[in-house]
Amino acid sequence: MVNNVKHLIIIGGVAAGMKAAAKARRESPAMKITVITDEQYISYAGCGMPYFIGDIIRDSKKLILREPIYFKNMHNITVLTRHLATAIDTMSKQVRARDIEKGQELVFDYDKLIIATGAQPIVPPLPGISLNNIFTLRTIDDTLKIRAFVDGGQVKNAVIVGGGLIGMEMVENLVLRGIKVTVVELLDQILPPLDKDMASIVQKYLMGKGIEIITSDGVKSFEGNDNTVIKVITDKRQLPADMVILSIGIKPNIKLAQESGIEIGTARAIKVNERMETNIPGVYAVGDCAENIHLVTGKPAWIALGSTAAKMGRVAAINATGGSDTFRGVLGTLIVKIFELNVGKVGLSEREAVKEGFLVESAIVPAGDKAHYYPETRDIIIKLIADKTTKKLLGAEIVGEGVVDKRIDIIATALTFGATVDQISKLDLAYAPPYAMSMDAIIVAANVLGNKLSGKTEGILPHQVAERLDRNEDFVLLDVRTDLEYKSGHIKGSKHIPLDKLASRAHELDISGEIITYCRAGLRAAQAYRILKNAGFSNVKYMDGSILAWTYGMEK
Amino acid sequence: MVNNVKHLIIIGGVAAGMKAAAKARRESPAMKITVITDEQYISYAGCGMPYFIGDIIRDSKKLILREPIYFKNMHNITVLTRHLATAIDTMSKQVRARDIEKGQELVFDYDKLIIATGAQPIVPPLPGISLNNIFTLRTIDDTLKIRAFVDGGQVKNAVIVGGGLIGMEMVENLVLRGIKVTVVELLDQILPPLDKDMASIVQKYLMGKGIEIITSDGVKSFEGNDNTVIKVITDKRQLPADMVILSIGIKPNIKLAQESGIEIGTARAIKVNERMETNIPGVYAVGDCAENIHLVTGKPAWIALGSTAAKMGRVAAINATGGSDTFRGVLGTLIVKIFELNVGKVGLSEREAVKEGFLVESAIVPAGDKAHYYPETRDIIIKLIADKTTKKLLGAEIVGEGVVDKRIDIIATALTFGATVDQISKLDLAYAPPYAMSMDAIIVAANVLGNKLSGKTEGILPHQVAERLDRNEDFVLLDVRTDLEYKSGHIKGSKHIPLDKLASRAHELDISGEIITYCRAGLRAAQAYRILKNAGFSNVKYMDGSILAWTYGMEK
Repeated sequence: MVNNVKHLIIIGGVAAGMKAAAKARRESPAMKITVITDEQYISYAGCGMPYFIGDIIRDSKKLILREPIYFKNMHNITVLTRHLATAIDTMSKQVRARDIEKGQELVFDYDKLIIATGAQPIVPPLPGISLNNIFTLRTIDDTLKIRAFVDGGQVKNAVIVGGGLIGMEMVENLVLRGIKVTVVELLDQILPPLDKDMASIVQKYLMGKGIEIITSDGVKSFEGNDNTVIKVITDKRQLPADMVILSIGIKPNIKLAQESGIEIGTARAIKVNERMETNIPGVYAVGDCAENIHLVTGKPAWIALGSTAAKMGRVAAINATGGSDTFRGVLGTLIVKIFELNVGKVGLSEREAVKEGFLVESAIVPAGDKAHYYPETRDIIIKLIADKTTKKLLGAEIVGEGVVDKRIDIIATALTFGATVDQISKLDLAYAPPYAMSMDAIIVAANVLGNKLSGKTEGILPHQVAERLDRNEDFVLLDVRTDLEYKSGHIKGSKHIPLDKLASRAHELDISGEIITYCRAGLRAAQAYRILKNAGFSNVKYMDGSILAWTYGMEK
Repeated sequence: MVNNVKHLIIIGGVAAGMKAAAKARRESPAMKITVITDEQYISYAGCGMPYFIGDIIRDSKKLILREPIYFKNMHNITVLTRHLATAIDTMSKQVRARDIEKGQELVFDYDKLIIATGAQPIVPPLPGISLNNIFTLRTIDDTLKIRAFVDGGQVKNAVIVGGGLIGMEMVENLVLRGIKVTVVELLDQILPPLDKDMASIVQKYLMGKGIEIITSDGVKSFEGNDNTVIKVITDKRQLPADMVILSIGIKPNIKLAQESGIEIGTARAIKVNERMETNIPGVYAVGDCAENIHLVTGKPAWIALGSTAAKMGRVAAINATGGSDTFRGVLGTLIVKIFELNVGKVGLSEREAVKEGFLVESAIVPAGDKAHYYPETRDIIIKLIADKTTKKLLGAEIVGEGVVDKRIDIIATALTFGATVDQISKLDLAYAPPYAMSMDAIIVAANVLGNKLSGKTEGILPHQVAERLDRNEDFVLLDVRTDLEYKSGHIKGSKHIPLDKLASRAHELDISGEIITYCRAGLRAAQAYRILKNAGFSNVKYMDGSILAWTYGMEK
């Protein structure tokens, strides 16, 4: 009888691993289930860790969702913490592990195996990297260490190396603790998944809050005193630092799998099929150590997120226990809160879409998140990216103090089903003044992009305008806002004709010259575009997003 | 030259009409455009009117988006207010109208015609209906009258007749003005588009706020003093009333079209194709006077909403000016804010789905709107309705203080593309703790429904349990919450075994009897279901949504 009980081993005890364990038990009351993890804590909320450091989440216990004893008592799942899996023999179906405390080597037979070894922070071998108070943030241990150090009250200056998602979340949470924060990013923009134009809006916002953001500069070394970091040395600067958060990226933990003959994919993580199965039958990989298919490109991608981990864990558990389920892929959906700003992305950025060989059209459209007359309506700035050939949407980036996550999720759903821009503009979205404009912001944006796709209007992105100004190209940049708005700040070198005077004053402009119109948010610029077109001007464009999306200099 | 200028006439100057006018001008710089409306105000925000009465919107000017002079100066669109269109001759292509102020009859030739005559409140011919202070709320005039009367400070008791969307919005806005509000609804539930179980959650919430909600009672007459209403007489009651809001529904204004030989559809509004064209070539109908196709049933439906009006207006304008665009239909998406509660629906309710002949499975699933450990996370209660045969989703209803509109819009997008429940459970939605659980609430709900669809679990809806209790049927209702929770209130007649004791105390239950488990939100009830199943119990169900969705009596 006992010999008939199958054994499922899961290596890894955080999001994907514990989700797989719990789901496997629900699917199979009888199967023996063992989780092996080298960590002390399991089933913790990795994504909540920055907020515990910022004291938004007050109690670290809230981050630890479940203890091993819970899984034993409630689900008859054995969780071996502080056990490091060292080898997998896929022929004899055995996992070797070392009890870290006791130093003992153990061997476990399995019938099915789920690998959920996660990922780890990239730590470059720079001089001084081992100094005290240089932290990474990946585990509960990391979190408790950082929190304790911050609680000590001795931190004046923090340097965050890497301007990605974790870096940005740490900016907010360290500032909330009264710390002066400097971000150093090697690339020429923060938030690398976003296009530079959209990331620049975030950067401008953060700099407006007094946070120093240094881009295009690399960290060379760390200097210490008494074995404790005091300075970050970059290619161009020396930055005082009582602490350093190293958040330049993570890499999947694939060594164990690789050494066991499990195939690694082109995205350099464990290759799995839609059933989450590796090249070895009965061996699954889920979570941050595994590859996904990007649903827009159809190509393998490695995008490590807790939400994906949970879904993958569930699918692997169903398949490993004899059921059947599939997970087709991801869209690289992301959302991050940075102070009052919400920043989201889904699908491909413009840069990624071009790189993938798409013929790209995009639009940047500011719009209100609620009815404009409803209190507390706030702007969001939407960038939509589409395929000129098929008119399908490829991706979206949204930034603003208004509600961003809703629109990202609408686009995530639409991208899943290969929606065209036109289909998005016709969606029957929920409307009442406290929630949306009668045409939701995302529909307005789709309409603007649709007009560009069909050639009805011709827009130009702010960064393209900035580049052409830099090159001193010959065109008229036409500000069509009111006198008051113009005087409060405008783009250098722009000519000013208010929209309501444009028809009567169009003769002041050279009808054969190139004219680029702009206003505050793009709507009047588009109207001006049309007035000029109707007046016989042939070479007119309007600046997408206009001043709201303009992150370059202004003058009064 | 002048003879070549085509003339577009639009009858109606609110959402659909003015959207059509503005879009037509953008599409066609040369076309002559005339808007004819019997109202004094145009282009106003009808959906914002309740909030002006509640003083959430302080300035009535905010509701009036544009004046006629704006359309004349900016867009060369002639708007004739206080002109009542009285006849359309589709053969000679003429519209007759009466200048209401001057009493003058006018005739206009048109090349293209867009009918946007809207809808009007249903006013039943009850005794006393003409008394003062019995209001409907449809136009700016209505709004200004109600607001002025409320501002007078003499209103103690208001009776709202009809518990639909406008009625519910007026509940909040009158209560905000310090008025005692009673709602009288003829049906046995408020919010008729929702299933009764979900509407009951809203009703319970409102009654908890001291608002009297009377269902299954019809208004018979109104009694007055000095020609002013003082009492509402219903089938069962007499209610004191200083004012009455009549919000029992609206009907499309189709008389003009009907008398002109324009076809009326099965949903009793003007029949249009995907191009918004009526049976008469060159004559379009948009907004609240026109029919739509319901995208789930494929059948004509009449669902009057400002968001749909704007989209229809845009499509008709493009087609009337020589372009080509289509609008395929609607999902009956709705959202309403009632105090802190958000209430939304999209697609078919369970009742509607059954009526349409679908074999229906549904689930009620409470879940957090953000990560449970993130501050200010609040519950929402999701009801998903699916087709058992195709496993496709048919609709969703969501109620709660957490973020509802986002999940409604995700489902609206998914329904547009005919998503299965499984596809929804795999969506790559935006995840970070301030925005969602790692598996978004809607994914959790889809997983629960998926388990029911595949026969992995068997749930029963709270109202079904209540009905079976009423009939004294023979089953054990098993409360698996903690001692503390049980003592604070439980369903009468329930047996109590806490979940963590269930495995060891299962022998207390009759293994051949029927057992229905419940907890607070459904998760532990589902776990208890599984424990009992694994212990050999064959006739087990768990109560969907459990106490959070239970709107019937409790005892301590």
